[in-house]
Amino acid sequence: MNERIAYVNGSIVPESQATISIFDLGFQNGIGVFERTRTADGDLFRLDQHLARLNASLTMTRIDPGMSMAEIKRVTEDVAARNKPLRGPDGDYSVGHYISAVPGGQTAIPGGQATVVIFTEPIPFKSWARAYLDGCHVVTPSIRQMPMNVIDPKMKTTSRIHFHLGRLEAQLVDPEAIPLLLDENGNVCELAGHNFFIVKNGTLRTPPGEAILRGVTRDATLELAQKLGIPAEETTFQVYDVMNADEAFLTTTTKCIMPCSRINGRPIGTGKPGPVVERLEKGWAEIYGFDFVEQALRHLPDRQAARPEPGLTAV
Amino acid sequence: MNERIAYVNGSIVPESQATISIFDLGFQNGIGVFERTRTADGDLFRLDQHLARLNASLTMTRIDPGMSMAEIKRVTEDVAARNKPLRGPDGDYSVGHYISAVPGGQTAIPGGQATVVIFTEPIPFKSWARAYLDGCHVVTPSIRQMPMNVIDPKMKTTSRIHFHLGRLEAQLVDPEAIPLLLDENGNVCELAGHNFFIVKNGTLRTPPGEAILRGVTRDATLELAQKLGIPAEETTFQVYDVMNADEAFLTTTTKCIMPCSRINGRPIGTGKPGPVVERLEKGWAEIYGFDFVEQALRHLPDRQAARPEPGLTAV
Amino acid sequence: MNERIAYVNGSIVPESQATISIFDLGFQNGIGVFERTRTADGDLFRLDQHLARLNASLTMTRIDPGMSMAEIKRVTEDVAARNKPLRGPDGDYSVGHYISAVPGGQTAIPGGQATVVIFTEPIPFKSWARAYLDGCHVVTPSIRQMPMNVIDPKMKTTSRIHFHLGRLEAQLVDPEAIPLLLDENGNVCELAGHNFFIVKNGTLRTPPGEAILRGVTRDATLELAQKLGIPAEETTFQVYDVMNADEAFLTTTTKCIMPCSRINGRPIGTGKPGPVVERLEKGWAEIYGFDFVEQALRHLPDRQAARPEPGLTAV
Amino acid sequence: MNERIAYVNGSIVPESQATISIFDLGFQNGIGVFERTRTADGDLFRLDQHLARLNASLTMTRIDPGMSMAEIKRVTEDVAARNKPLRGPDGDYSVGHYISAVPGGQTAIPGGQATVVIFTEPIPFKSWARAYLDGCHVVTPSIRQMPMNVIDPKMKTTSRIHFHLGRLEAQLVDPEAIPLLLDENGNVCELAGHNFFIVKNGTLRTPPGEAILRGVTRDATLELAQKLGIPAEETTFQVYDVMNADEAFLTTTTKCIMPCSRINGRPIGTGKPGPVVERLEKGWAEIYGFDFVEQALRHLPDRQAARPEPGLTAV
Amino acid sequence: MNERIAYVNGSIVPESQATISIFDLGFQNGIGVFERTRTADGDLFRLDQHLARLNASLTMTRIDPGMSMAEIKRVTEDVAARNKPLRGPDGDYSVGHYISAVPGGQTAIPGGQATVVIFTEPIPFKSWARAYLDGCHVVTPSIRQMPMNVIDPKMKTTSRIHFHLGRLEAQLVDPEAIPLLLDENGNVCELAGHNFFIVKNGTLRTPPGEAILRGVTRDATLELAQKLGIPAEETTFQVYDVMNADEAFLTTTTKCIMPCSRINGRPIGTGKPGPVVERLEKGWAEIYGFDFVEQALRHLPDRQAARPEPGLTAV
Amino acid sequence: MNERIAYVNGSIVPESQATISIFDLGFQNGIGVFERTRTADGDLFRLDQHLARLNASLTMTRIDPGMSMAEIKRVTEDVAARNKPLRGPDGDYSVGHYISAVPGGQTAIPGGQATVVIFTEPIPFKSWARAYLDGCHVVTPSIRQMPMNVIDPKMKTTSRIHFHLGRLEAQLVDPEAIPLLLDENGNVCELAGHNFFIVKNGTLRTPPGEAILRGVTRDATLELAQKLGIPAEETTFQVYDVMNADEAFLTTTTKCIMPCSRINGRPIGTGKPGPVVERLEKGWAEIYGFDFVEQALRHLPDRQAARPEPGLTAV
Repeated sequence: MNERIAYVNGSIVPESQATISIFDLGFQNGIGVFERTRTADGDLFRLDQHLARLNASLTMTRIDPGMSMAEIKRVTEDVAARNKPLRGPDGDYSVGHYISAVPGGQTAIPGGQATVVIFTEPIPFKSWARAYLDGCHVVTPSIRQMPMNVIDPKMKTTSRIHFHLGRLEAQLVDPEAIPLLLDENGNVCELAGHNFFIVKNGTLRTPPGEAILRGVTRDATLELAQKLGIPAEETTFQVYDVMNADEAFLTTTTKCIMPCSRINGRPIGTGKPGPVVERLEKGWAEIYGFDFVEQALRHLPDRQAARPEPGLTAV
Repeated sequence: MNERIAYVNGSIVPESQATISIFDLGFQNGIGVFERTRTADGDLFRLDQHLARLNASLTMTRIDPGMSMAEIKRVTEDVAARNKPLRGPDGDYSVGHYISAVPGGQTAIPGGQATVVIFTEPIPFKSWARAYLDGCHVVTPSIRQMPMNVIDPKMKTTSRIHFHLGRLEAQLVDPEAIPLLLDENGNVCELAGHNFFIVKNGTLRTPPGEAILRGVTRDATLELAQKLGIPAEETTFQVYDVMNADEAFLTTTTKCIMPCSRINGRPIGTGKPGPVVERLEKGWAEIYGFDFVEQALRHLPDRQAARPEPGLTAV
Repeated sequence: MNERIAYVNGSIVPESQATISIFDLGFQNGIGVFERTRTADGDLFRLDQHLARLNASLTMTRIDPGMSMAEIKRVTEDVAARNKPLRGPDGDYSVGHYISAVPGGQTAIPGGQATVVIFTEPIPFKSWARAYLDGCHVVTPSIRQMPMNVIDPKMKTTSRIHFHLGRLEAQLVDPEAIPLLLDENGNVCELAGHNFFIVKNGTLRTPPGEAILRGVTRDATLELAQKLGIPAEETTFQVYDVMNADEAFLTTTTKCIMPCSRINGRPIGTGKPGPVVERLEKGWAEIYGFDFVEQALRHLPDRQAARPEPGLTAV
Repeated sequence: MNERIAYVNGSIVPESQATISIFDLGFQNGIGVFERTRTADGDLFRLDQHLARLNASLTMTRIDPGMSMAEIKRVTEDVAARNKPLRGPDGDYSVGHYISAVPGGQTAIPGGQATVVIFTEPIPFKSWARAYLDGCHVVTPSIRQMPMNVIDPKMKTTSRIHFHLGRLEAQLVDPEAIPLLLDENGNVCELAGHNFFIVKNGTLRTPPGEAILRGVTRDATLELAQKLGIPAEETTFQVYDVMNADEAFLTTTTKCIMPCSRINGRPIGTGKPGPVVERLEKGWAEIYGFDFVEQALRHLPDRQAARPEPGLTAV
Repeated sequence: MNERIAYVNGSIVPESQATISIFDLGFQNGIGVFERTRTADGDLFRLDQHLARLNASLTMTRIDPGMSMAEIKRVTEDVAARNKPLRGPDGDYSVGHYISAVPGGQTAIPGGQATVVIFTEPIPFKSWARAYLDGCHVVTPSIRQMPMNVIDPKMKTTSRIHFHLGRLEAQLVDPEAIPLLLDENGNVCELAGHNFFIVKNGTLRTPPGEAILRGVTRDATLELAQKLGIPAEETTFQVYDVMNADEAFLTTTTKCIMPCSRINGRPIGTGKPGPVVERLEKGWAEIYGFDFVEQALRHLPDRQAARPEPGLTAV
Repeated sequence: MNERIAYVNGSIVPESQATISIFDLGFQNGIGVFERTRTADGDLFRLDQHLARLNASLTMTRIDPGMSMAEIKRVTEDVAARNKPLRGPDGDYSVGHYISAVPGGQTAIPGGQATVVIFTEPIPFKSWARAYLDGCHVVTPSIRQMPMNVIDPKMKTTSRIHFHLGRLEAQLVDPEAIPLLLDENGNVCELAGHNFFIVKNGTLRTPPGEAILRGVTRDATLELAQKLGIPAEETTFQVYDVMNADEAFLTTTTKCIMPCSRINGRPIGTGKPGPVVERLEKGWAEIYGFDFVEQALRHLPDRQAARPEPGLTAV
């Protein structure tokens, strides 16, 4: 069979039939939590870390998935394995876990019922591959980051329309721009769906893991930096520091590490991806064993001209 | 046929088959807006006001439903009419509109695609009818109201897990309690899903229509008060004022007006529904033509003993 | 002589020689206050109100201009009278008062010395005339309004680079856009250098005179509305209300009343100047005796085609 | 010739003729940035650091000075060299760079025109020399520090009337007092125009380089402390910590390091300059090669009696 | 007997023996509420309003005084009556109610034990009488008003050391100054222990009854203004408005209405008590039946010279 | 004699006669500071640290106790020594210092008069001993922590009714619950009267010593951790981190270290006291020489069954 399958509430179904009720409280009220794990050459990368964070989100929202984390892991591996052969050339998956409340099922109470969905979605490398070469553009919207005493951003909930609202504003400046959310004091927090780093005098700086999602890829990057001997700090900073940084980049599960070359229309540093980002990208391939840049670039029509063949890395 | 139908993306389907894709961005990211309109004896009450607010929510989120508000109205009336015969005794519907983004459909851009769902859901009168007699209990959680510069609460979006988080805290005090959300300065905002009023020296006070959802039932209540000669103010107030109020009540589409008799374990006024609430309830029946209290009480097993037959009103 | 003159520290000098020392603390530290009054057909409009506000700014900053308000008025009238003949066709002046501290002159102490500058500057009607026809575009930057407990915006000080910073962000969206500053809670405050009004259901709404400059033209507009029987409220509101308004407009000394037809790329109401703005514009000409729209449009090359001749008003 | 010269917009002019137009936007709207570098025995101290910060301020405000930083450096050195012989006995200069926007010159856009002024101003040692012996008095005004999301204090802009407003309040307590600005949470930020340090148990503490100007002298002091083996922390603290500190001092370009011996009328520590400040002062002379205390004291009439001759240092 | 008596926990005792345990939680932790009512010619003025507010404070803090409000009233009248003969010439009393928790007595729980103290204290007219002639001086400290979501200032609790802290700062400027507390946004709130009014263009303005104690004398003044046809608004305002007001005054139980003639060292209006304050003072005597100004001035040694005999009023 | 004595304003009196005037400003206005030191087997533990903090509180509030810190120490030791023989079996004291202002005594001015009280109070081990076995329950109230720019929590003042207000809310959830106060951004601050720690992956985390009381026991615990080789950080964290911690505990003078096993009804970690807390408890006994757990458990009727005899420690 040629269709990917998904897990929905205890059953394996073809993706095209993977649906949830219109009465689901994840759909109706955003009462849900989720994770996105990527595959590398078809294999799950850092699944345990993603499931640990999923567990923390479930704890905070008191949603009872009705199955153990071990069961969720087993099902995830099963879904990923079944769909692995269906990847396209140079393809990989973003593996989604969505767990939401349903009405009548008081999921805050033991025994309550929840919607549990696990699926694989092809990563759209083509749509963003060019940004590995050019860097992406970040823009600060007027919308502020979600405060910790409303919906703590460390929880990965499905109530995140503020990211959409920020994106609408950023895209007024540049249709490709990604919104960089500030908190009410002007501290840089996170890009919608991505963590953010700057580089100044050879040191990485990224906001503390408080008013942001503590990204698994952010952790992977901090570990990588340590292995590569690149100093890194978790510290608050502001637009001033981004404007005057040498380099900047984002991290997220599907893109791993992607350079950010402009903020609010101005170049960051030279306005091109810089040497520290490149070192991290190469180091990723060496240490984590897959070259996400090379993989993405293969999806570009003009790939060969765009970037010299890497000599160091192999998927 | 005995099953209610729903409208999902252009089709009329039986409710049990009314589903949306697991890739819907309303489900995955809370990128959706909604309304809930009630029927009174099967007929839609203040549908135009609900659709006007729906339109305002769509404007702010730039979600394009792909159909005009007139079309949405027509479909709504059609769905309500088809399901009207299926109401149970003394039954009525909460009519839901949910419009959300889907991936690939850049709904912020004309021509983008959205999920549009319209359905009728029986109002669970039985679950809250007793509170018309006893009043409900409101509890202030530590979670704060959504700020206006993050997700303006005047938009009725589906990203509202903070209401769930507040409810979890309130229910630690009393499983029946409804959370009363304060803003970061301690101003009373709204109950999760309900507007809130206090009565002091014969005057209604309700928070201004700024950091809250501007409820259609809230408006109906303010209009009703004016018709009944009850003075009313939209003004900020704090827990102090609730603790020392004569009466309090909530408003919401399905419950209309419901007395609140306790806050944080303490009685408000006498700790019983008071004369102003009663006057509003009776006035509602006279002026808007349906007696929601009487209707709800009929769902109680011990209804007759609980409350004397009303003499004044008729549905 | 064909050159305009200006008053600088006690002397009347040709404008081209009107300079201040590089050591002036207005230049070096923004320790200054100012006013801008317009002429209508060469005559000063509401000068007394502007000087009253200037006096309030001097009081707060304890800058002693070394001359009485009556003297300042007399000099102003003199400067305006001398330069009146030098207006171009359909021309008028923005009359500037700038009073700043100088080092060594401890202007907070009686007897201290200040820089006092009074001049006339031709109003650049041509640069904005088209916006009377099309409406202008307002954009919300991430930069926030100056808080009242830092530099109270009711003082008209020369420390206002935040307006420039907001403008830089707004112009990323549209080079013609004017920044609409929000306070830290998301309340609409003012446009950089302009007050802001919306119209909803026939009523004007403008932010309270607290966290904004209390514009003389804002006052003139509120008085005008009262004379025309247009209800008006000074009340906080948010972007939601602008997005869903029927009309919007700005007020400022040199532009008087100018329609705002878009916010963040979206049309406000029909996206065209609306009937209430037009009524205010016409009422202004009738009651205050000059038709600023007509005057501005005469500066457009294609003026005749652009707008039907007004029948009601005369300068 | 006996008059100092200054650079103004491309020309070298006598200081008495160094003026700018009354239409300059630095003068009118505070749209400008600046630096102050001091000379030590006539030679520029840490000019490169000052120009680097100037460049960062220009980047943030998008003011284009129309000349490269290298050119600015060259002109600065030229101006300083020409004026060097005109210093008085024991004299030194505060070298000012002021770059501001002019109307019509859209300095945010490449090619725009700016005002560029470079000058030398004698440091008024006499006016503050005594404070090296007695320590100065800091007072907390009710005015709050400029927030980072309005005008980030890391930019050295000319919009700084809040420092003047704070000074007015502090001087009500003591005409010599310097205002110590707190942020809205009560954190100590900076003195108007100076950075602030406390000493507790032998360790220096100074607010983080976020909501303050990152002073060049602050950096010089932190480097000096490291060389002298004095531990130092960049950390938030409050009035409580100042009140209970062992010592306190300020840093600023022209005063270098000056003890602060009182806060809000109370002694800090012994109420006299303490051993750590003295060690820093002496260390400065040894390591940076000029004894700013000795130099300042020579300007006092009663210098000999006031302080024993230093044995360790020489200019 | 010549000693005043007081009520302490059920007993009438001579004032010199009126003590509480060192273990009282009012003394140890500020867990107490209080009222201060004044007598006019020995009779209690507006006792009912004071007791109503006391009751509201008890409700919020859940302190159970162990006696009904009617009993408290009866005891109060008894204490006042017994001490009435002991007033000095032109003397009156501040009658204090203090109710606090004691350890072991869980006063939040019905049946808990509290300390109840009721006493009369001679009003020290002499110490402030001169300010009726000269006006008092208000100074804004850096300390902020107590926020509503910490200890709501509408409760009259005994935890009020912030007033003392503000007073310490104000007295650095002037030993007679009274601190004017601002909230964190710079809104004028209240003087330590007094409400505050300004007069502008004949209208009274006083902060809304939200983030302040809702003074009984403030209410009496608002009622008085209404009777005298003086318009009044409850509205937020800032230091700017005080600096530019025509007059200002404070209200408090023992001083009734007292002019404020200076703020932060600057005159308010003419810097003398103005006509509106005078009208209120005279109106008070006429309508409430006692001339508090006249009474206070009689305590001044140089009373006759200080103020012309009033012709209008009689006690 | 069998009654404990106390020191009150210069005299040693039996505790039952230890009283203060009802006019004391500590009682009436919370204008006081205090300390609580414990004895261990009758001897004062870390008295110097407590007196140093008392001195800092006196400095901030400018209350002059009228005696030196050395005298206070001497009196304290005397009081403790006299009462030592009166301890019960396994008993110890909480030694209280309370210093407050009295009216007429302007304690901010040298020479002013203050109330000084020093006493010993038996520690009620029995009331909380069980929590060493089960852990206590912490609950987040809606009331917020006292801000640093109102009454800095680093001062130990007697104005602390907000702790009582928080306790009232927490006890709605569980009569044994202790309130965990959050600041307005949602950061965990302190329990009412206790500091708070979490343990994650073997590292202690406790909020920085800024917006909290810097507990002497908190310091003792951090020193202990260092001696035991347990890593510890002073860092902000939120409810999310507590919910997902491995262990949590509180510190306070009388309880030393006590496990916290639940937050808002949910178990922390296993919901039982964990190994790190136990290691700290045992380490305390070894290093500081008294086993507070063992001592407390001896006050339980069922002590033997509850916990195995410790082998390691001895008092």
